[in-house]
Amino acid sequence: MIIAAVDAFPLAMPTIAEVSDGTQDTLVVRVRTDEGVEGWGECDASPLVSLAVYCCPMSHSNIISIRDTLVGERLDSPDDIRRLHRKARRQGLDIEQIDHAYSGADIALWDALGKRLGLPVWRLLGDEAAYPKLPYASVLFGDTPDETRRVAARLRNAGFRAAKFGWGPMGRYGEGFDRDLVAAARAGMGDENEIMIDAGVVWGADDETAYHRACLFAPYRPTWLEEPLSPDAIDEYGRLTARRPPVPIAAGEGSNRVRAAADLIQNGGVSFVQIDVGRIGGITAAREVVALAKRRGATYVNHTFKSHLSIAASLHVFAGVAEFRYLEYPAAASDLARRLVKNPLAVGSDGLVRLHDAPGLGVEVDPGVVRAYLQPTRIEMGGKVLADVSAFA
Amino acid sequence: MIIAAVDAFPLAMPTIAEVSDGTQDTLVVRVRTDEGVEGWGECDASPLVSLAVYCCPMSHSNIISIRDTLVGERLDSPDDIRRLHRKARRQGLDIEQIDHAYSGADIALWDALGKRLGLPVWRLLGDEAAYPKLPYASVLFGDTPDETRRVAARLRNAGFRAAKFGWGPMGRYGEGFDRDLVAAARAGMGDENEIMIDAGVVWGADDETAYHRACLFAPYRPTWLEEPLSPDAIDEYGRLTARRPPVPIAAGEGSNRVRAAADLIQNGGVSFVQIDVGRIGGITAAREVVALAKRRGATYVNHTFKSHLSIAASLHVFAGVAEFRYLEYPAAASDLARRLVKNPLAVGSDGLVRLHDAPGLGVEVDPGVVRAYLQPTRIEMGGKVLADVSAFA
Repeated sequence: MIIAAVDAFPLAMPTIAEVSDGTQDTLVVRVRTDEGVEGWGECDASPLVSLAVYCCPMSHSNIISIRDTLVGERLDSPDDIRRLHRKARRQGLDIEQIDHAYSGADIALWDALGKRLGLPVWRLLGDEAAYPKLPYASVLFGDTPDETRRVAARLRNAGFRAAKFGWGPMGRYGEGFDRDLVAAARAGMGDENEIMIDAGVVWGADDETAYHRACLFAPYRPTWLEEPLSPDAIDEYGRLTARRPPVPIAAGEGSNRVRAAADLIQNGGVSFVQIDVGRIGGITAAREVVALAKRRGATYVNHTFKSHLSIAASLHVFAGVAEFRYLEYPAAASDLARRLVKNPLAVGSDGLVRLHDAPGLGVEVDPGVVRAYLQPTRIEMGGKVLADVSAFA
Repeated sequence: MIIAAVDAFPLAMPTIAEVSDGTQDTLVVRVRTDEGVEGWGECDASPLVSLAVYCCPMSHSNIISIRDTLVGERLDSPDDIRRLHRKARRQGLDIEQIDHAYSGADIALWDALGKRLGLPVWRLLGDEAAYPKLPYASVLFGDTPDETRRVAARLRNAGFRAAKFGWGPMGRYGEGFDRDLVAAARAGMGDENEIMIDAGVVWGADDETAYHRACLFAPYRPTWLEEPLSPDAIDEYGRLTARRPPVPIAAGEGSNRVRAAADLIQNGGVSFVQIDVGRIGGITAAREVVALAKRRGATYVNHTFKSHLSIAASLHVFAGVAEFRYLEYPAAASDLARRLVKNPLAVGSDGLVRLHDAPGLGVEVDPGVVRAYLQPTRIEMGGKVLADVSAFA
């Protein structure tokens, strides 16, 4: 079939707070083909900046928009999707945002192709089974240890066997407070469950402090300590992991390119590499990191803080790899993120999450929710209307 | 003083061709302070995508626009500029385009501060002298060897002692044609001058072909072979340089972050690292690579394919380091790029380029040229006008 249209829709909650909650807005991408097949994807990125990559005027042969790259192209096989991924990165060589923006299109292409062929995406990727995953509820720390313990207890009561606590006050009020936050997470979740700690890049390039925090947190047995350092502090990650801290180190959500993930695994020495399918360039790019992680003995984990459209896309990438067993699962999300698809991936009675047995991504975008949260957007440049998202139809 | 306004102006030639000429459009950034001081910078990036980073709505605490980051901030010292660089990257942590977009603002801040303090930027950076540099005329290959020889002869007659030929047909018609292109560049420039070859990422991840081309080109004594591989093909660069090809390898224009440049130097093993001050995050970020290159024994070179505003900004970064002696100097540029500043950095009678002895960057933007090439741009989102560049005043 032929790609007939590529449309990006910015969605947002009515008010946006300056907190680290990535579900307050989003950019969803719809691909339509000449056969009437429709695929959907989602970017974890600034909606306006990424929308601009879909419609920007050509600057020269290395700055060509995603729309111009895709419309009119053939879409018949996984190889077409991989070819278009290369084409988009080549024509967008000098657009730094290309990976963030193209992620939504790539996911939508896999969804559309799966629907056309009647196969789930994990099968298109060549996997033979889709394994259930252990979801860890991903939430922000409470403002205090007490509030954190209450959040943890609520998650445990909701049936979560693992939960990750991140950002918020961590790293901001000294090591005693940090330890109390971790202790509260452990107390609330109980000894039998898993906790993960996400430091939210708070120690920047200070691997010494990161090491000592790992030691301080070790008695509470977190599964990992995530992003103690800035995404670009690779040499510092390397020093930190070379000391073999008593809590394994996780990072990777800042990987905007496959090379950045490779750099983090090979030179940063992380144990868990956390890839956001909505940032790194979609399923095609994330899948490359799965292969790399397998080769290097690291554990691949999704990073997801968007809707169930993104959770499904994330899960297809590594559903077929039994040993990669954790699934990040946003447990405190905006109405927009919770309702974007009609059939979210619920946590089963065994505490695990499975993909729906359906073609493509297996989730269905709710047009009413797109309509309700649509941010009307209009971009004019040099006398031309480049984008005019005024209604969803 | 206080930053009062940050404005970005997209400029473009009336028609844009699908060729690798980066001077067909641009985004210039103006910073104004409460004391009436004005600084200018330029981004080498998609103007629309980067403009969006200046005005995008907040998505959460890691996606905050450059305008919101800068307006109202103090600007009294180089440390303020470094602090604001960190702030912009922190508040733009999840905006992939942040480095490309912020480059223009960072350059404008250095320019403004220099003007305020009556000092050239290289002095603000702590250097004790500004050394003249050997400009290499940077041009595209002709479509044929004959045309390439004519281009080279013209540059030699214009007084250039070095010239770099790139992109175009290189790598597209087999090794015989590639060799003839290089031979023609050498013949046109004469034996006494320097030539550089820019392969324009044409061999992707194929380091074997890159190695053999380096051997094939060696008899024509190019100073370097540039970007034989994709910016992300670091392992392949590492394999290529480990074989010690007879022509030194150069790369780096694709470094959107300091870490990418570090990765290329440390793991890719390149001899020349070519940094675009309009992509990597401005003077502040490029300066970090100068220090890194010194430590690792690599040679820092600017990558510049924009106006003399960018040439000046590029040159301030490493003017103080005598041993980094090459200056990329676009010799075939659009009317827009050639005329953007009133006082371009001309090649002296000794064939070298020097900075003007003046505060800030030392070049003066021509308001008439900004006006003539301004691309009226209007961005509305969620009922708000985020950008309205309709006239230049």
